[in-house]
This record gives sequence, C-alpha cells and structure tokens, in this order.
Amino acid sequence: MPLRPHRPLPLATPAGVEVLTRILTQGPIPRVEIARRTGLSQAAVTKAVAPLIEAGFVTDQAAAPAELDSANGMVGIGRPVSPLTVVPRSVSVIGLKVTPTDLIGVTTDFTAGIRKVSHRPLDSTDPKTVIEQLADLAKELIGTLKSGAEVVGPVIGIGVAVSGDVDEKHGVVRDSPFMGWRDVPLAELLGRRLKLPIVVTNDVRALTVAEHWFGVGVDADSFAVVTIGSGIGCGLYINGEVVSGAYGVSGELGHLPLAPGDLVCTCGRRGCVETVASSDAILTRIRSTTKQPKLDLAGAIKLAHAGNEHARAAFDRAGEVIGSALAAMVNLVGPELVVIAGEGVAEYDLYEDRMRQAFGAHAFGAAGDCRLMLRSHTFDDWARGAAATVLRAYVRGEPPLHR
Amino acid sequence: MPLRPHRPLPLATPAGVEVLTRILTQGPIPRVEIARRTGLSQAAVTKAVAPLIEAGFVTDQAAAPAELDSANGMVGIGRPVSPLTVVPRSVSVIGLKVTPTDLIGVTTDFTAGIRKVSHRPLDSTDPKTVIEQLADLAKELIGTLKSGAEVVGPVIGIGVAVSGDVDEKHGVVRDSPFMGWRDVPLAELLGRRLKLPIVVTNDVRALTVAEHWFGVGVDADSFAVVTIGSGIGCGLYINGEVVSGAYGVSGELGHLPLAPGDLVCTCGRRGCVETVASSDAILTRIRSTTKQPKLDLAGAIKLAHAGNEHARAAFDRAGEVIGSALAAMVNLVGPELVVIAGEGVAEYDLYEDRMRQAFGAHAFGAAGDCRLMLRSHTFDDWARGAAATVLRAYVRGEPPLHR
Repeated sequence: MPLRPHRPLPLATPAGVEVLTRILTQGPIPRVEIARRTGLSQAAVTKAVAPLIEAGFVTDQAAAPAELDSANGMVGIGRPVSPLTVVPRSVSVIGLKVTPTDLIGVTTDFTAGIRKVSHRPLDSTDPKTVIEQLADLAKELIGTLKSGAEVVGPVIGIGVAVSGDVDEKHGVVRDSPFMGWRDVPLAELLGRRLKLPIVVTNDVRALTVAEHWFGVGVDADSFAVVTIGSGIGCGLYINGEVVSGAYGVSGELGHLPLAPGDLVCTCGRRGCVETVASSDAILTRIRSTTKQPKLDLAGAIKLAHAGNEHARAAFDRAGEVIGSALAAMVNLVGPELVVIAGEGVAEYDLYEDRMRQAFGAHAFGAAGDCRLMLRSHTFDDWARGAAATVLRAYVRGEPPLHR
Repeated sequence: MPLRPHRPLPLATPAGVEVLTRILTQGPIPRVEIARRTGLSQAAVTKAVAPLIEAGFVTDQAAAPAELDSANGMVGIGRPVSPLTVVPRSVSVIGLKVTPTDLIGVTTDFTAGIRKVSHRPLDSTDPKTVIEQLADLAKELIGTLKSGAEVVGPVIGIGVAVSGDVDEKHGVVRDSPFMGWRDVPLAELLGRRLKLPIVVTNDVRALTVAEHWFGVGVDADSFAVVTIGSGIGCGLYINGEVVSGAYGVSGELGHLPLAPGDLVCTCGRRGCVETVASSDAILTRIRSTTKQPKLDLAGAIKLAHAGNEHARAAFDRAGEVIGSALAAMVNLVGPELVVIAGEGVAEYDLYEDRMRQAFGAHAFGAAGDCRLMLRSHTFDDWARGAAATVLRAYVRGEPPLHR
C-alpha cells in the first residue's frame, strides 16, 4: 500500500470523536456500552460508527455466543451488538525520543502498539545535527513500513518527545536544559525534511498521554506519572485530561524548591529537587564524598549496593527529597495513583525506603492513601508516548493533524 | 410563597445541565451562542431551554434592537433570539462558614448574589454546640426569607464550609485541625434539625467553586485560589473542573514541606508552610523575637509597619515561604492566573515583595508568566462559596440534591 501523508478520519462531530476515543481506548466495546458511558443515544453511536467501519478504521469483532444470547442482542437495524475495536493496521505512526546522547524511534499502529524499534547514537546536540539525524531515523522507520510483508496503513504523523519546556501548539522547544536548546522550531525544521505532520511534545507529558489512552489511565479517574533519572518529571491526568499548563509548563516536579539552596540546578535556579535527586546529582555527590572523581553511575550504584556509607547517604538524600516532592504533589492535586517510571527505577531499591518515609511524613491526611506504583520502563516507551500524542491529535483533529 | 425543601429542576439530560450551566454562569446569553459554545444543535438548546422557562428558572430578556436587526434575529419557531438569563429569585440558598470563633451565614439567590448576612460568635468548638448554633443561624436566615416583602424561591439546600479534610460525598468533616474535629458527620446531624439537603465542603474549595461559576473562573481556562490567613489553602480549577482529589484532599498548599523542619504544624507534621506563614505562626515568632508574649496580631502588624526589624523579619520569612509554595504550585499545575485572597491579605504589603521575589526565583520557565491577582475578600465570601457549592450540586443533580 502506498504511503500517504494523511488519511483523514470520517469524524464530523464531537460525538464522533468521543465514540472513536472510547473504541480506541476501551475497546472491544459494544455500541450499547459506548452509549451508556458517553450519555449519547444508541442511534447517535451507530451513526458515528458507520463511516468509521466503512472507511476501515473500526471493525465489529465476531461476537461471543453469550453476547448474542443476551436480551440486547439486536439493535434497530438488525445488526448484532458485537463489540467494536479499531483496526490496528489502519494507520501507522512514528514516535521519536531525543536524549543528549541518543535518538530512539518506534513505529506504532493505531493502538500505540510498538512494531519496530531503532536506536542511534547522536553525533552532537547541535539542533541542526539532531534534526538531520531525526529525519534520517524517521525515513529509516518509514522504510520498514514500506518494505514489510504486511500491508499497513499510511503514516499519519511523526511525534518527537523532548525534555523541557515545549510549546506544543507551535512545535517549538522553548527551553531544554539537557539539550542546551532555546527556542528551536523543531516541528517546522523537521516538517520541511519529512513532508509529514510533526507533533513536538514534552517527553513526560507524552508518557502521560500514552498512559491515559493505552495504560493505567484507562481505568483511573486521575493519576500522575513521575519519571526519575537524569531529570525528574511528572505528568498529571486530572478531570478527564492531561494537564498541559496555561503557559505550556506543568508537572515540573524536579524543579520544586524542596532541596537546600546550596546547589545550582541545570535550569539555573537554586533549591530544585534535581540538584539532589537527579542521577547526575547523586553521582556528583558520591564522586565528591568518596573522593573518586572518575566514578561512573554504574560504579556509584555498585558502591551503594556494597554498603559504602557515602554512596548510601547520597541515595538516602535523593530518596528523601523525592518523597517530599511526591507528598507536595499529592497534597496539591490528590491523584488516585502515582506511577513511578524512568531510568532511575533501576536504582529504586537504594532510595525506596527513604522515599516512602518522607512521603508518609508529609502527605496530608487521605492524600497519602494514593498508591505509589513502580513501572518498569524503557527508552522505547518515551518514543511510544510521542506516537500516542500524534494519535490523540489525529483522533481529535487537533493541530497539526486537522481534518 | 411557602418554602419547600426542594424545587426540582426540569433537566432530563446532560445537555440540559450543560445549557442551564451556561445560562447561569455566562448569561445573558443567546441560544445561538450556547449552541456554538457547547457544540449542541440549536434545536437541542431550544428544547432544553423550554421547560426551564416554563418552570420559571430562566427568562428571555428583552432583546436589544441591534440584535433584532441581525440576520439571525429569528429562529425556526419564530421566536426572537433574545439572550437568556436565570431568574435570580427562583430559588434561595443558605451558605454557612464555620470558624473556631464565629459562624458566618448568608442567603443567596440563584446567581449566588448575597441577600442577607448574619454573623454570630461561637460559644465553643464542641461539635454539638456548633451544630446547634448552625441550626439556629440557618433558621434565622430562613426566617428572613419568609418575612421579607419580596417573593423569593424556596431554599433548595444549605451549604456549610469548614477548613480541613472534608468528605463531601458523605458530608463528614474527617479532620479539621482548627476546629479540633475528627470524623464529625455534620451533614447528617444538621440535616436532622433542618430537614433540608445539607452540603458540607472544604472552605477553600467552596471559594473556588464560587470563583469558577460566578467569578474570575468564568473566563479563565484554569486558575488557583490561594487563601492566606490563620490557614493557607488553595483551590484549583483545571481541565474544566474544580480539583477535588481522588481521596477528597487537594490544594493543601499550607502543608507543602517547604519550611525548615524545626516547628510542628497544627496538623502534627513538620516543615509545613503554615509553620512559618500562617498568621498564628507569624504572631508566635514576633512574640518570641520581640519578647512581648502578650502581643496580638494587630499589635504585631503595627510593629512591622513601624519598621521593627524582628516583626519585619517574621513577615519576610512568611513571604518567602508563601512565594516558594506558589512557585511549587504553578510549576506543577501551570494555572492561567492565581487569585490571592483570605484574611492575611490585609497584611499583604508586609510580605508581598519577598513573596514575589521567591516566586520569581523558583517559578520554572513560562509557568512564571502566571498572573498573581490580589482579591479583597471578606468572611461572607466563604459562606457564599458554600452557597455556590449547593447551587452546583442542584444544577448537576448531584448528592444530596438529586433530581
């Protein structure tokens, strides 16, 4: 099947968007259940679904016998009430994650299921180099779609996840301390090379979108995703939507002023959580206290596991500040659960006790009932989050994927 | 007109609730504008409005000549497109605020407009005494409705605002350190005496509901209300709804662990913002540093205004911690604007500079673009917030005001 840059969804009304969203995130789901959950009439659901089936985005699954037996087994037009699912291969998406050292790319289907993965080391963090390498990686991934034996749908867009303050609306990376970027118009520059709609998003928010539509968020009324590693971030899902911040900033858990003011953060401020709890901060501290200036993170973790008290102390201190930050967050927004993810999860055992202690000491009242869940997590998940963000814009008809 | 405990709204569908909410919070508003803002068809809007007009909750205002001249001056059924408003006197609400020393009560109309106010000193914070005095105050206020020359609608319910952790669903005050209450089933106990639906709510959240429906929130996509005084609280409006917290706790800005850990908070924890920045904490500090153990708050404020350096230092320290707390909040949720209110606003000039300094130092990137607005504010506004919470439950058909 030839690739087309865009395959428009036949969704004319907000009700149609709502119906497709339910099928995508909660399917297999019968029409009657969509009607119940959305408050739409069954007729409205049936009307919204018909063109989606016609165009090959949605399908009736073979109904289970039990369902055919039920009293509601038939609807007005004589069609059995069989559950609806999206057709995963009807569209393809490219998701990319940028780190200071590597690019990670995935292709996914309509349900954000990962099909192909490709990593490549980055030659430099210079925007020009990164954009060229991103374009090459995207082309390589698009190539795998064309060459595969399976027939897959066209690429509807490319998502790029970057850490920092990202203006999603204009596709501009406003401030990414890790990349050393300021006001990089990534969507425009990459779009010129790839001739496809480009969505640029904050990486933690991308992960939260993926959890919202395809992960823990499907069943939770509210949740937070907290990522721990070279940076400390947080995505929030509250009142039916991922929190984006009126000015594009939200979830900056790593920049809450909860640490002593003696160290300057990568962002230039003092007292940020990351000055104590990022993996770099932990390593710097252990290098200094153990007087081993050439230690790497793996070595520092090894020292801590071996019981070196300086190394342990650095992780303890990180755990304490992370626990306080989690308490601050639940005291303010009161999520149902917190998913803890990120590269730092590998060292989780080194700070978990102190983290839970500090969380318990500072969580206010019933806010502390919130579950802290550990989620193992790879770099590919960041790229998948970028793809999920494209899918969301596509279904909703939001820029740059207008209908 | 005889008072009835409940006057049901003729709202059969979610669309009806949406339409009435727009008229109530954004009226006067033409039908065509409601259709545009809600995405409903004009026919659906007209259908939802008809029974509300019929039952006297909504009215067509006399249309302005300019509007009658417009091309859209007529709709299908030959009715001029005149803006819709609610009929303020169609219902009455009682709003009550409980403080450790006083009860404040108001009666409001359908638009949360205050009609009567009554304050009375509290004899004791014992729940039994408070409930008796609350019942008396409510009866007095209901009496003013009956005796007035104007014909007003029946009391649809009574709202009670209390500081602390309040379980709104069950009408239970779970933990109110200021009142010294734990698990007080206020709704049940007060309902027995008054035979009216009782809504019990956290006071800051009540204020946020009032701002959302009848204040700054009508035009803001997101906002925070921060109250400064004997306690420090925060209400958040994000993604189209006031944040309630999965476990009933949210907005506990006064209990973020941003202060040194040397003082124990009224909540029993260490390091809370309130240990430094509540009016009690400021007074205690000034009493100690000036060695004037009998100083009252007014005296402490006077000292600070006179330039006493100990008094100034206590306010400086409070301003710094409040500014850090505001920064933490905007870094996490990124509201469009922050309304600062509460009794402490009277001393605002004493800590504003330090507060803005600390906010500026810790707000991350564009999150700092958020406007900090000062809102003068009286105790009556807390009671009005409780009334607004009743109105919201009434319009939405939520407990205890089910249809």
